[in-house]
Amino acid sequence: MIPDTITLSHGSGGRLMHELIEELFVTHFSNPELNNLNDSAIVDVTSKGNKVAFTTDSFVVQPIFFPGGDIGKLALCGTINDLSVDGALPLYIAVSFILEEGLPMSTLQRIVVSMAETAKKADVKIVTGDTKVVDKGSCDKLFITTTGIGVFKNDNVPLPDRVKPGDKIIISGYIGDHGIAVLSKREGLQFETSLESDCAPLNALTRKMLDASSNIKWMRDPTRGGIAASLNEVVAGKSFGAVIKESSVPIRDSVRGACEMLGLDPMYVANEGKIVAVVDSDDADKVLNAMRKDEAGVNASVAGEIVEGPEGLVLIETDIGGKRILDMPRGELLPRIC
Amino acid sequence: MIPDTITLSHGSGGRLMHELIEELFVTHFSNPELNNLNDSAIVDVTSKGNKVAFTTDSFVVQPIFFPGGDIGKLALCGTINDLSVDGALPLYIAVSFILEEGLPMSTLQRIVVSMAETAKKADVKIVTGDTKVVDKGSCDKLFITTTGIGVFKNDNVPLPDRVKPGDKIIISGYIGDHGIAVLSKREGLQFETSLESDCAPLNALTRKMLDASSNIKWMRDPTRGGIAASLNEVVAGKSFGAVIKESSVPIRDSVRGACEMLGLDPMYVANEGKIVAVVDSDDADKVLNAMRKDEAGVNASVAGEIVEGPEGLVLIETDIGGKRILDMPRGELLPRIC
Repeated sequence: MIPDTITLSHGSGGRLMHELIEELFVTHFSNPELNNLNDSAIVDVTSKGNKVAFTTDSFVVQPIFFPGGDIGKLALCGTINDLSVDGALPLYIAVSFILEEGLPMSTLQRIVVSMAETAKKADVKIVTGDTKVVDKGSCDKLFITTTGIGVFKNDNVPLPDRVKPGDKIIISGYIGDHGIAVLSKREGLQFETSLESDCAPLNALTRKMLDASSNIKWMRDPTRGGIAASLNEVVAGKSFGAVIKESSVPIRDSVRGACEMLGLDPMYVANEGKIVAVVDSDDADKVLNAMRKDEAGVNASVAGEIVEGPEGLVLIETDIGGKRILDMPRGELLPRIC
Repeated sequence: MIPDTITLSHGSGGRLMHELIEELFVTHFSNPELNNLNDSAIVDVTSKGNKVAFTTDSFVVQPIFFPGGDIGKLALCGTINDLSVDGALPLYIAVSFILEEGLPMSTLQRIVVSMAETAKKADVKIVTGDTKVVDKGSCDKLFITTTGIGVFKNDNVPLPDRVKPGDKIIISGYIGDHGIAVLSKREGLQFETSLESDCAPLNALTRKMLDASSNIKWMRDPTRGGIAASLNEVVAGKSFGAVIKESSVPIRDSVRGACEMLGLDPMYVANEGKIVAVVDSDDADKVLNAMRKDEAGVNASVAGEIVEGPEGLVLIETDIGGKRILDMPRGELLPRIC
């Protein structure tokens, strides 16, 4: 029997921890690799050239439940998407929980169920994990660290060395939804909005894109720092720049309104279910068509292009025709957004 | 230039985070796979039958520096050892930091240097990572989650299905050092001891053991819950039991003394640089000799054996000839020991 509340004993390596693992984690995440309950999961990584992709992220979002998602769904999507943008097929996820003593068990259960649903939807397996419990006040409810392994099944991967002037910049849909949805529930900052986080696994979308064209040069999921940070990564230290047309970037009125109210630029707000890609101009239509066939890409559009100069900079062309630099973000706009 | 203190901006995805990554993490952990700084590291996992071992653990030890180690060394050793006891060769580590706003940069630097040294000693690479910063009070200084991939180079792996009565139980050295060393520095609990944590990577030791015998049935690093929890895992639900001879378990006088003072049983105290193994009796001497050639195994000894019954139980034979059950620990003896 699982008690109502997380206690220090749930992280002790003893009987209560084993019960939690069996009754909660194994029940919901069940698969042959996990169910062995060894210290390591043994997984099959048959992959082209024996290369695999390996990524990790900790999640500390506050609040832990937000419109459109929760910290568990977010953690899985974040790791799945990091593997996907490198062209890997996400297969196996390791999940490590840091729980605060006194956390209601129902909260953990709700998050575990959400993770199980997300894993099923994205066709990945949670194969190994860990649980630590810290004394009350030593962490804020719970933190989750997810680590993923992805394999390569063919040569359809992004080729960042081939980015060149003329390439198109494609954004897969409305930007800023995640950051604003989370902020709308932040204590002391609540405002009226029906907005939901875009938090979603994107492996099906990136697969369609890479299958449609062998000229996808670069992909990112623009999370912390938003579109601005991602595009700055493409051009940093390079002999080319990027120009984005503000009117071509899909932004919801509700996000635009909230950003105005809060003094934020939507280009810097985090997304958790979007792709920004650099694609050869010849293949841009082909890629767009493929994206629009995926539920996560129906609103995809060409939002800008790679240009000769200014070197290493991202410019944004405003609706009234001016241009300004979209710099790498310097400070913290939105703490604990993911 | 890295400032003196961690701020929320170090987790924002912006310029300060990139500077922290470049100037601290890349400087100390440098390797080709990491230095690409993609969302995922692309790693080569050439492995027998395409099987790899995959494990994760979060570390929340308090205090973060203790005699013989620190949270960073502990995190690396923990993950290396989890892979090693499954017979895998640890290769790649992902590291995710959750940092409290206001953490002195010198603290983080000291931990990063310690992790780099441990990685070098154990011949593993830190290839990918993440940094989140939470507002002051939302976590206790820093938490580290490490995830590892290990490959299999040959068939020398433990064979848990072949554990049978008559097999010997070998312990690689003095038990309880880690738990007592950490406790000795716990606020309000300080006592005089020259004891150091045994925190160490054990991949060289397990390699020597597996190369010496093809009859190693089972191995664990007895961390949380100590030797007692590990041995209970061997026999749980099985048709055999285990008997340990108290006088054959290597325990330092200082650990024994501290345990008496604190009301703890050393069999339940965490170790971070020990192996407990079940080995066919014919090969026990061969394995012991191999272990004693490794610095982490010089004090190895046969401490007990697998017996016909009582089924599913671990018994300990005390020095005065009595026997008592060494049950799976129920409650939390020592919170935040790892």
